[in-house]
Amino acid sequence: MYLAKVYVTYKNSILDPKGEAINDALHRLAYQNVESVTLGKYFELKVKAGQQPIADQVDEMCDRLLANVNMESYRYEITELED
Amino acid sequence: MYLAKVYVTYKNSILDPKGEAINDALHRLAYQNVESVTLGKYFELKVKAGQQPIADQVDEMCDRLLANVNMESYRYEITELED
Repeated sequence: MYLAKVYVTYKNSILDPKGEAINDALHRLAYQNVESVTLGKYFELKVKAGQQPIADQVDEMCDRLLANVNMESYRYEITELED
Repeated sequence: MYLAKVYVTYKNSILDPKGEAINDALHRLAYQNVESVTLGKYFELKVKAGQQPIADQVDEMCDRLLANVNMESYRYEITELED
């Protein structure tokens, strides 16, 4: 069994209004030293070994479902779990 | 300048319907070997060094704003950035 941790974030050219709102809220809470905030999605997938290499499969799942590749980029880490 | 990467996920006892929906969708896309999916939030904060240690401050920001500590747990990593 494998654990895939997938991080999906907006591309730099895309406006991130939620991140901006959180940045403003942190300033109002007196954390003036916060420079910027970006908000993304974080997936944890538990995947059984299959015929295809896990990394290839996770890549495909990101492209086909988890990320909107037009405006988001993704990266992932895969670790093997004890069964 | 520091980069804080914050991961917020539901506690185990909390139902994660979006994660379930993604799990089902992946099965329909023929990724039958996916066992479970959980969906969380991922924040990247750029923070300038202040009077308070950065880790203490990030901890406080999570408790006060970024996570709903009743149903979510969080973890974070802090790295120093080149100025």
